[in-house]
Amino acid sequence: MMKTAKLLLHCPDRPGILAEVTDFITVNKGNIVYLDQYVDHVENIFFMRIEWELKDFLIPQEKIEDYFATLYAKKYEMSFRLYFSDQKPRMAIFVSKMSHCLFDLLARYTAGEWNVEIPLIISNHPDLHQVARRFDVPFYLFPITKENKLEQERLEMELLAKHGVNFIVLARYMQVVSEQMINEYPNRIINIHHSFLPAFVGAKPYHAAFARGVKIIGATSHYVTTELDAGPIIEQDVVRITHKDTVDDLVNKGKDLEKIVLSRAVQKHIERKILAYKNKTVIFN
Amino acid sequence: MMKTAKLLLHCPDRPGILAEVTDFITVNKGNIVYLDQYVDHVENIFFMRIEWELKDFLIPQEKIEDYFATLYAKKYEMSFRLYFSDQKPRMAIFVSKMSHCLFDLLARYTAGEWNVEIPLIISNHPDLHQVARRFDVPFYLFPITKENKLEQERLEMELLAKHGVNFIVLARYMQVVSEQMINEYPNRIINIHHSFLPAFVGAKPYHAAFARGVKIIGATSHYVTTELDAGPIIEQDVVRITHKDTVDDLVNKGKDLEKIVLSRAVQKHIERKILAYKNKTVIFN
Amino acid sequence: MMKTAKLLLHCPDRPGILAEVTDFITVNKGNIVYLDQYVDHVENIFFMRIEWELKDFLIPQEKIEDYFATLYAKKYEMSFRLYFSDQKPRMAIFVSKMSHCLFDLLARYTAGEWNVEIPLIISNHPDLHQVARRFDVPFYLFPITKENKLEQERLEMELLAKHGVNFIVLARYMQVVSEQMINEYPNRIINIHHSFLPAFVGAKPYHAAFARGVKIIGATSHYVTTELDAGPIIEQDVVRITHKDTVDDLVNKGKDLEKIVLSRAVQKHIERKILAYKNKTVIFN
Amino acid sequence: MMKTAKLLLHCPDRPGILAEVTDFITVNKGNIVYLDQYVDHVENIFFMRIEWELKDFLIPQEKIEDYFATLYAKKYEMSFRLYFSDQKPRMAIFVSKMSHCLFDLLARYTAGEWNVEIPLIISNHPDLHQVARRFDVPFYLFPITKENKLEQERLEMELLAKHGVNFIVLARYMQVVSEQMINEYPNRIINIHHSFLPAFVGAKPYHAAFARGVKIIGATSHYVTTELDAGPIIEQDVVRITHKDTVDDLVNKGKDLEKIVLSRAVQKHIERKILAYKNKTVIFN
Repeated sequence: MMKTAKLLLHCPDRPGILAEVTDFITVNKGNIVYLDQYVDHVENIFFMRIEWELKDFLIPQEKIEDYFATLYAKKYEMSFRLYFSDQKPRMAIFVSKMSHCLFDLLARYTAGEWNVEIPLIISNHPDLHQVARRFDVPFYLFPITKENKLEQERLEMELLAKHGVNFIVLARYMQVVSEQMINEYPNRIINIHHSFLPAFVGAKPYHAAFARGVKIIGATSHYVTTELDAGPIIEQDVVRITHKDTVDDLVNKGKDLEKIVLSRAVQKHIERKILAYKNKTVIFN
Repeated sequence: MMKTAKLLLHCPDRPGILAEVTDFITVNKGNIVYLDQYVDHVENIFFMRIEWELKDFLIPQEKIEDYFATLYAKKYEMSFRLYFSDQKPRMAIFVSKMSHCLFDLLARYTAGEWNVEIPLIISNHPDLHQVARRFDVPFYLFPITKENKLEQERLEMELLAKHGVNFIVLARYMQVVSEQMINEYPNRIINIHHSFLPAFVGAKPYHAAFARGVKIIGATSHYVTTELDAGPIIEQDVVRITHKDTVDDLVNKGKDLEKIVLSRAVQKHIERKILAYKNKTVIFN
Repeated sequence: MMKTAKLLLHCPDRPGILAEVTDFITVNKGNIVYLDQYVDHVENIFFMRIEWELKDFLIPQEKIEDYFATLYAKKYEMSFRLYFSDQKPRMAIFVSKMSHCLFDLLARYTAGEWNVEIPLIISNHPDLHQVARRFDVPFYLFPITKENKLEQERLEMELLAKHGVNFIVLARYMQVVSEQMINEYPNRIINIHHSFLPAFVGAKPYHAAFARGVKIIGATSHYVTTELDAGPIIEQDVVRITHKDTVDDLVNKGKDLEKIVLSRAVQKHIERKILAYKNKTVIFN
Repeated sequence: MMKTAKLLLHCPDRPGILAEVTDFITVNKGNIVYLDQYVDHVENIFFMRIEWELKDFLIPQEKIEDYFATLYAKKYEMSFRLYFSDQKPRMAIFVSKMSHCLFDLLARYTAGEWNVEIPLIISNHPDLHQVARRFDVPFYLFPITKENKLEQERLEMELLAKHGVNFIVLARYMQVVSEQMINEYPNRIINIHHSFLPAFVGAKPYHAAFARGVKIIGATSHYVTTELDAGPIIEQDVVRITHKDTVDDLVNKGKDLEKIVLSRAVQKHIERKILAYKNKTVIFN
């Protein structure tokens, strides 16, 4: 794999942005290997993801951000993020008692499917320690009560910082994350909710789906914001059910959905294909 | 096609019901061509749909209902409905201004896909008169205002009664049907709602879906009850969208969903495959 | 709707193409409203679709093609096609005896869903004349025998030319189109095949699917080439079946698939979103 | 969970079978908790799955089979199999080098999702020994060459017999199983093929799918018969792809399909919900 730079940006839409950015890369001898752009004509916002090979690029890697900021960011009132393919993101997994998402994430990690490091797993229950041990990933227990929650989270954040964690995956973590942690990781905490949001927000969505008699259930992966189950949606999928399915059947069918939907979202995050904006996501493909 | 009887029933679950009912049919020389049963173990209710050929059946067609009621209905505290394949149900279509569902229903009717009669179309707007005319189905206009609503509905019900209508299909009929009509046609008014219920109840669901940034949109067909968009769900389906889809794109993608989902629900109703119970449906397949 | 130009092109991938083309449009005061590009790294081919508003564009509409050909086509060994939003494509529908796809196409046409003209329907059987009449579209009957096939096709092509037809939709037309007509309309004859190609090529695919015991059936829309059912695939979709489904059930479930899949393909063709290359399609979204 | 008996049967369709079997169970004080039946009207075969609680059943568990054989099997020319919920099936997994299906099966096993024992894993390559070790399941290596194949399989079968294995799951096992082993485990070897069969039989189906330019790829789980990739299909599913997906992308998207489709098939087999007949499967739900 060639080393590449990945640039995600958005700004008010104006003529010339696209031509200027691609020209900047081409003139400096970067070979563009990916480009996708999108204009939100309602909000008049231009979004773009562009990736180019760094091999012959005339600007040194560590200076690209400065160059780009100086040349374009101000001129176009642009927000942008720059990533390099040789910088592996570091991900923490939070779990409680259910193992199916954790197994799926760790199996992919162990099999080398993703360009990511998983330095630790954090849990509020001891149950999944054995799973972590099977995959040789350090497991930290932080039991949470109403009283100790903020203090425990503070300790968790210290630990995350110590391990250089960039983003967090809530793999059926059955605790509401508090504002202090959400603010520390804006659009960098990925949750899996076991319903087709916004249907069945909150606890026990399978029970609610059963009670309502829906014919399809779903799962939703989203970034966590301070409003419960209301953050930017990254990925959703559904599966058909019938009147014969009990709540337990829904739970079981939902497990496969949850793990697949969560993994797709995590993969897109790792590949820097998500741009969150105004409580929505632009997903480059 | 052989002439058949179709029996749908439900009652408290007790040992022996299934054996006794199938025995009753077999002993009287009915050849069972379809049987599906289901037990709701939470509510302890037994549901069953059974269909048999009438050719050699020893009990005359017009007496079956009496026999069955006398022998079993009381003994098992059973609710049941009996249909015969030579009795064509009569369906009315209610529309407003959008034509896609109406075209789909009338194309199937004209092509002879369904065992149904459609004696009339009712609308609160004149727009689709031309479509009705293309298919030679009488079209009746009942403009609705806040003031005339109950009176107009009364006249509609007279017309429906005159045409022997058994059930009503709201094919994007943009008026809330009032309680008097719902009570006249319990679990016999089929609506198509343009969202994945219970997400986005009410008006403008595509706008709401767009605003929430969902990655999948849906359509839901359900029986109409007095609580808006909350009746027993018959059929749902979904389609994937992306951030590139505008509200107009959702509306257009949704049209195909709506017509297919509505037609599937109508077909199941015509084939007597739906048993509504406690705001849910048992769908025999 | 603003008047726009749509440019589809492909050429060997080289640095600078994208920047140069977008620059050309921007410099001439065209406002880019759509851009999607894709590089086939296996074949090293660059594909692009770009659309811009013509309102303030400095080059007159009728000269754009010349300008572009002179400036870039030769330099980059480029194949390109240029379309304008005010030029409505003209489409002919070929049918035989089944009506479901025809009804769906005509309903969309009549409802104004598509920017297309349908000047005529051609059939080898008289059965669907009534459907055409319902929608006031001229219907021409060309009965086909082994003996008269080439001559009848010749007459059809004369008729198509007279009506300025740009592309043909085979809406369950049960005749193999001969080479002379395919060559006259390269990548401009759209067929719907009632299977998930390449499974079940040729006649009676539902019977073949039933015999094989598949759990999912499909439909495939593709451009017609001289090899039967082997042309570039535009769109496919599937539906789940069970062992309970008879061949007739498959045929009926398939009808909904066929009409939706065909309509999606036709829509993409009308919107100039398909670029066929080496027996595959690039579908811009 | 109550202890239950599960009876799967098929026989020529005749009036009275259903009534007689349900009557037999009811009269002997078995509480029926599941019944599904299906008649193949083309072949005139009656299929049935019935499950009842053994708690108050008058016939001792070990004599049910005899009773049933004596009373009905001959009279109705019936084939039947009887299972008890307290008899855990024993399953062997065969793998080669790819880990995704193995991880998924072992995660479910470890989490207690299935009523099954997995006494051993067999492989023709050493690569996945580590995965087996993580889950504490014995791993046996049988390298296969053209010369030693039959002998190695013979040893494998001895080992399987020693461990009381009832059925085998080929979790991306890249070796054609020979006739001797297939005959030993008729309709009891479950394979996952990485295409939507019957499209792309044989090796490298993702390459074939890419070359053909399909818009949807699939995976198929089936029982292994002596004809390659042609055995009775248990489960299939698909995922949408685009022209942007490379062969590697197909392989990766396919992995999730493969593991889910294989696991669904294995689960149905464990739950005794599959009846294989004439190279097809009846799947009770």
